[in-house]
Amino acid sequence: MNVGIFGTGNVGQTIAARFAALGHNVVIGTRDPDATMARTEPDRMGSPPYRTWQAAHPAVRLATFADTASSGEILVNASSGEATLQVLEAAGEDNLNGKILIDVANPLDLSQGFPPSLSVVNTDSLGEQIQRRFPSTKVVKTLNTMNCTLMMQPEQLAGADHTVFVSGDDTDAKATVGDWLRTIGWTDIVDLGDITTARGTEMLIPLWIRLFGQLQTPAFQFKVVR
Amino acid sequence: MNVGIFGTGNVGQTIAARFAALGHNVVIGTRDPDATMARTEPDRMGSPPYRTWQAAHPAVRLATFADTASSGEILVNASSGEATLQVLEAAGEDNLNGKILIDVANPLDLSQGFPPSLSVVNTDSLGEQIQRRFPSTKVVKTLNTMNCTLMMQPEQLAGADHTVFVSGDDTDAKATVGDWLRTIGWTDIVDLGDITTARGTEMLIPLWIRLFGQLQTPAFQFKVVR
Repeated sequence: MNVGIFGTGNVGQTIAARFAALGHNVVIGTRDPDATMARTEPDRMGSPPYRTWQAAHPAVRLATFADTASSGEILVNASSGEATLQVLEAAGEDNLNGKILIDVANPLDLSQGFPPSLSVVNTDSLGEQIQRRFPSTKVVKTLNTMNCTLMMQPEQLAGADHTVFVSGDDTDAKATVGDWLRTIGWTDIVDLGDITTARGTEMLIPLWIRLFGQLQTPAFQFKVVR
Repeated sequence: MNVGIFGTGNVGQTIAARFAALGHNVVIGTRDPDATMARTEPDRMGSPPYRTWQAAHPAVRLATFADTASSGEILVNASSGEATLQVLEAAGEDNLNGKILIDVANPLDLSQGFPPSLSVVNTDSLGEQIQRRFPSTKVVKTLNTMNCTLMMQPEQLAGADHTVFVSGDDTDAKATVGDWLRTIGWTDIVDLGDITTARGTEMLIPLWIRLFGQLQTPAFQFKVVR
């Protein structure tokens, strides 16, 4: 399958590597591929420049957002929440129409420092904003409530005995995403309902951030005990 | 110990019954005790009127908010989030000063129907509002992330193998509350930090509400797997 991933940061890289390891054709999207490849400094999180990761993953193709969107049969939004709508505009509505878009981003507002607040919250969510702007795209919000290593390798914690949530308006799209989540190791998948339920998972992030501060590791997860 | 509980609803009743069963002297507060005892109709949640519960718990004394606050050595806010600040004003700052106030309320805004949104969110929380207004009271936010039956009897689900969070500025007050949580059966208590971390647990409620809708039972809980 051709998979298009928006965002060349740590999250995009982790998802791209996992899809590639599963044998899919992976395109990873950025605003300006030449500029992304030209960077030699660590990013703002202190991670190595993209070119380092690219050299280790030659099967993954770096492309523009529009090329990524048109190439991918299934798409993943791994851009930062503050950039997401601009990224998808650059990807192009025609390239997005009819496709599943897995949205793993959170609308973090880092402008006031740490801890971040949410730029969209309470009566709206980033997932809903995307769905409203691109009504012919099948937005499925998921995997936005844990560290990206656990996203792609849930068995690394407690034998995957923890929960991933799914929100979206399209039942078939959620079923397809659910199959893929099981493929990568998820065992406890909770369908919360329509895309408005993305409010709940995005609003979980402030608690995640405080737990990260207290536990001093991102290797934790939420489980819905029932 | 003398315990004062604000709020005669289901949450207040459940907490009062548990404290009374543990041998404490419990006063439960309402705006107008005579009016509360005079009601014969079910409340807006369809629960029996307060007098029914009072008849079954004669050791618990119904009193005004001010009497409740002055009588209690430790206090519990189990009023609705929208009423909390008014309730505490009626309780009286002098009666609250120096005491631990366990805040289990959430700032639900039901004015726009279901699902409710939060009336305080993101860069503030109800817990912080209380702490700012009553700076000499030791506010400890806890037990606001699960159904009230599980609050008081966590062993009723999965042998209490799930998490309760604690937020507050006063370390000694949190230690006291932690001891009490262990007394009622909690085994996994996570101190999130100061009262600003109450934002995280209050913002968990929208997810709780959606899970309640999907699971069709309030008998579930969050566990921080780590």
